Formats: sequence, structure tokens, C-alpha cells
Amino acid sequence: MGSSRPRRLVILTEGQWDPHSAKTAHGMIRYGPDTVVAVLDSTQAGRNVAEDLPGHDIPFVATLADALPLSPDALLIGIAPTGGRLPDPWRVTILAALGAGLDVLSGLHTFLGDDPQLAAAAAVSGARIVDYRRPPERMETAVGRLHGPGKRVILAVGTDCAVGKKTVCLELRRAGLRAGQSVAFVPTGQTGMMIEGWGVAVDRVVADFLQGTVEWLVEEGERRGDWVLVEGQGSLDHPAYSSVTLGLIHGATPHGMVMVHTIGQAEHDFDHAPGRRFPVPSLVPFIRLHEEVAGLVAPSKVVAIALNTRLIADDEEARRECARTEAETGLPTDDVVRFGPDRLWAAIVAALEGDDR
Amino acid sequence: MGSSRPRRLVILTEGQWDPHSAKTAHGMIRYGPDTVVAVLDSTQAGRNVAEDLPGHDIPFVATLADALPLSPDALLIGIAPTGGRLPDPWRVTILAALGAGLDVLSGLHTFLGDDPQLAAAAAVSGARIVDYRRPPERMETAVGRLHGPGKRVILAVGTDCAVGKKTVCLELRRAGLRAGQSVAFVPTGQTGMMIEGWGVAVDRVVADFLQGTVEWLVEEGERRGDWVLVEGQGSLDHPAYSSVTLGLIHGATPHGMVMVHTIGQAEHDFDHAPGRRFPVPSLVPFIRLHEEVAGLVAPSKVVAIALNTRLIADDEEARRECARTEAETGLPTDDVVRFGPDRLWAAIVAALEGDDR
Repeated sequence: MGSSRPRRLVILTEGQWDPHSAKTAHGMIRYGPDTVVAVLDSTQAGRNVAEDLPGHDIPFVATLADALPLSPDALLIGIAPTGGRLPDPWRVTILAALGAGLDVLSGLHTFLGDDPQLAAAAAVSGARIVDYRRPPERMETAVGRLHGPGKRVILAVGTDCAVGKKTVCLELRRAGLRAGQSVAFVPTGQTGMMIEGWGVAVDRVVADFLQGTVEWLVEEGERRGDWVLVEGQGSLDHPAYSSVTLGLIHGATPHGMVMVHTIGQAEHDFDHAPGRRFPVPSLVPFIRLHEEVAGLVAPSKVVAIALNTRLIADDEEARRECARTEAETGLPTDDVVRFGPDRLWAAIVAALEGDDR
Repeated sequence: MGSSRPRRLVILTEGQWDPHSAKTAHGMIRYGPDTVVAVLDSTQAGRNVAEDLPGHDIPFVATLADALPLSPDALLIGIAPTGGRLPDPWRVTILAALGAGLDVLSGLHTFLGDDPQLAAAAAVSGARIVDYRRPPERMETAVGRLHGPGKRVILAVGTDCAVGKKTVCLELRRAGLRAGQSVAFVPTGQTGMMIEGWGVAVDRVVADFLQGTVEWLVEEGERRGDWVLVEGQGSLDHPAYSSVTLGLIHGATPHGMVMVHTIGQAEHDFDHAPGRRFPVPSLVPFIRLHEEVAGLVAPSKVVAIALNTRLIADDEEARRECARTEAETGLPTDDVVRFGPDRLWAAIVAALEGDDR
């Protein structure tokens, strides 16, 4: 998926700026290579992104017209709703953006490029519609590929979706590059793809080819680096997404897994079944189960815990929670966003360096 | 998927009549409602299907022309290869069938109806091309649906793909109907769909919607019966298909699982990784793991073993193997094809009758 980069983006989050609903927006602002000229969200207009994400001086604007003087060249859809549909009121905004010659970048399940009205508007102005979730033509089942010599594959897994698996990978890569290592990140979701410019949204692949696609992505990752960090999706106990998670585990056959967990979260972020509760699993048995399930295809071990301490305001208390989790699991534990990724990365490297399959 | 039935079928297996490659053909002959007038396979011509499948008096023919005097109204593609592609030499035969006005029924991943040459031939003669693997338009993630009151859902799982999960379900349904119970079979693969006339080939669904689709199929199954037998796919330890298996486990949230296992099979039927071996798992820990993994979303238990004893020639030895497996696992065990499904069905009913979630 080639395109001239970096771009100048307006990111649309209308009414859904919270970090969960707008995780694509937050990811692009924090880790993307592009310049974000404005976030389009009338409910936040007058504020600045830096108030929520320190260091990112980006205005919120109420309308697309307010953003145009900032010379954007693309509108990026900044949300990733369950099921991936386009909120109807956004259609008007997207049409206006295409009319103004802006490319439209989307990670929704609904392919905007297949919408006759949107496609016609793009054709008139010469703008492009990029649907990141569109799967590759390739349709191959997994073949049981072995990893290349000297390569180490690390998969982020988690106790829920949206706990920060992609962020953890990106932070760990940063640490690896700082340490002078050859590190590649393998994007398996639309936001990771927008950030990196390659990858496959594996949840959009035909189920029969999920593991084959992951295997192929890892092969490409191994061409790009010796340490290969694979973005995880969902969680092994998720009522809706666990099969995608297992496809990543058995398709990537990682040497090691990093377990991402939000400390203090009691229940899955899953509100489709009124009255039903899906508790977040206990770490120690969940870790053991990951190793056992992974081992059905290839041996693997959980080598570190990336703790998401966002629910804890106090830094010292967050550090104590990391220490408590480290004692509970016997695994190196840190919040790589809050306290930096270097310590955890060093522990992961130490755990996997000698693992020559 | 409505169509006038029963039909008069020619089944194409050219050069691949063995029960594994031609499992669609064998399934349709043994369990389908249609009349099979001939099997088109020049390597078997002159033989009769009854030599391999007693009771099914169907001639093998060498060419389509040899089958036409038997007044078929459709050609059914009788193989289910890995990756689901159409063998190139078969194209000529399919074109000839369409030219002769026969419908073409296919469960391949390659949609024949999307092939311009085949579609044109169908348009000329008025024949229909039915691609059973074409997924429904519906794109919904799972919502954590609870089963209806009084319903019992049973999922077939297995120690490999192609061990007989569908066959076990069909035999158990036969036993349930004989016992006067309300039993439904939920087809989750193309052969099951051809037999039943409804269902979804869940391996062809977009991965994100796999569990949601299974949940929806089970809901339909509950409308059709009180005892709902869900066809399984793959196996939880399969290098290529395990994610589809987990999607069935977590999408169906079965009250009980029936473990299908070929006694004497040491390795997975998976030859894509030269030099690699994928051993078939040991039953007892594999059963425990299924219960643990299923329990991540909803409690479930393995309630019976359906042993496939096809590798054992002697009936008495096969019975001894069932007894040995029953002693090893503590679960009722039988070969429902060889010895009939009634005993195992009664044991399953007894195990689940009181399970009021």
C-alpha cells in the first residue's frame, strides 16, 4: 500500500474522542509519521489535543471548513467501532472532504471505496479513498513455516481487546532501535497499518486463511528485522474475538508472548449482552493457558507483562502495582508507556536470546 | 438457499475418489437427500460405489457424456481440497455440464459463479451455479447470546480435521429422531449445507464475524430443534484451522462437546511443511484443555468420545478399542458409524438433560 508520506491529516472523531472509541485517532497522533493539523470533533472544539495527550499541539475544530485553512491533504476516520460501520452523520463530512480534494483514509469494515456515492465524489475531485481493512487477494492456508535462523518472534497478547497491545509493541520497538537492534513491527490491524504503511487487518481476512495470512506477515517481518514484534488482537477469552487471537498465536508461532493487562479492570469491555458479565481472567492461570494453547502447534512462553496502569493516578502506586504483578507472576513487569520500554525490552531480549529453535 | 429438491446428481471426483479427498462426495452419497445417478471419475470407471460404500448402488462413469443418459439435473463438485481451489482440468467438464443445462453445485473457496467464462456458459443454457461457500451478507460480531430455555447445544470437536465430525452429528441426529426427540443439525461447512439445504461455511466468513455467525446459526438451530447438534471444523491444535475451531467453541458456547478421534492416527493430516510433524494430541489432556478453553467464555464439558475405528479391520478389536478409550477417559465411547449411534446418543442425553444453565 504505497502513498506519498508524510501526509497532513484531519482526523475525524465527532463525539467519540475518548481513548477507547477513538483509539485509531490516539494511535495515529502518538505514533504516526504524519502531521495531524486538526481533530474534527465539535464536542471538543476550542480545546487542544495537548490537554489530553501532552506534547501534541493540535487544535480541535468544529467543522471541516475550520480545518481547511490548515492545508490538510487527507481526512482520516479516527474511530474503530465494534463491527466497523460508518456512523451515518459522518457521510456528509466525508463527502465534503472528498469534494475539497482530500483523500479519505478509513479502517472501517464498511469499505468506503465501494460506496457508489463516495466513489463518485472521489472520482469528480480526483481524491483517493483508502480502505485499510481491505484484505489482500492472497488466499492461502498456513503451511507450518519455520522461523528463519536467528529470528525471534514476539506476539503481544492480552486480557482484553483495547488494552494497548499495539502501543506496547511500538514502545518496545522504540527501545530495541535505541539499543541498536534490528527490530520490525508487524501491523495486524488498521491503525497499525496506517502508522506503518504496510500490514494486514487480519480480522478482515477469510477465517480459513487467517493463520496463513499471519504466517505470511511474520515472514515479511523477518525480512524487515531480527526481532519481530507482532501486534496482537482481541484476547483468548473474548466472546467475540478469541478466534482472531488464536489465529495470531498459531499463525505467528511466537518464541515469546508479552501479556498486556490493565490493572484494576474487572470486566471485559463488552456491552452487547445486557445483564451478562465477562470477567477479566486471572493472570497466572491465563498465562499458563496461553503457553499450553500455543504449545499445541509450537512451544512458546509468556516472557513479560506489560501492565497498563492508566486507572491508577499516582505514579508510585503504579510502580507498586508493577512490583506486585511481578511477584505474583514471576515475570518482568512494567508499564512501558508510563515508565518507558527499555527495562522490559532488555528483559524480553534476555529471555529469548538463547531460544534457538 | 432455496432450490427444488431432491435433485438428480452427477458427482465429480476425477482421480480423487478416496474418502479424504472426496469427503464431500462421500458425505452426499451417505447422507444427502438427492439421488446420485453417477460418480464421474475415469480412474474408477467400470466399478460401482457400492464396492466402497455398501448399499449405494451408483455407477462410476468415465465421462460426462456417459452420465447424461441417466438424466442428471446437476453436477456436484465432490472434493474439498486445502485452500479450496478448482483443479484446472475440471473446468472443461464444468463447462460441458453447464452447456448441457446441468446446474453446478460447488463448495470450493473459488466461487465458480464469479468466473466470467463459467457464468457466461450458465447464462447461455439457463443453468444455475450454486457456490455453497459464499458467505451471507450479514456482518455481525458475537453479542454473547444466551441459549433458549430448555435447549441443549452439542458441538462436535476433534483431534484433527476430516475425522468425521459431521458424520457423527448426522448419525447422532438419526438416533435422536428415532428416539422421538426434537433434534436439529447445524451445518457449518459446505458438505453439511449441501446435505441440509441451509447453514454457513464458517471458514469462509470474515474472521471478525466468525463467532457472531456461529452464534446466529445456533439461534436458528434452536428454532429447528431442542437438541442442537453443531457441526465442528478443524481441531484446536491444527496449524492452519485451529482459529475456526475456537470460533465454533466460543460462538456456539455448547452445553456439551463430543470429541471425535481416529484411533491409531499418530499425526495430523497436514503435509504442507516438509519434514515437520504435527502429532495428534493425547485424548485426556486434550479433553481437559477443551473444557478449560471453552470455559473462558461459557462452561462446557466433553460428554462423549466418538471413536473413528476405520483403521481397525476387525470388529471385535474395534469394540475393544472403544472400551479401552472409555476406560482411559471415563467417558462413554463408541464408533457411531460402525456400531450405530443409539448408545452414545443416550449417554449424551443423560449427561446433558439436567444442565439448565
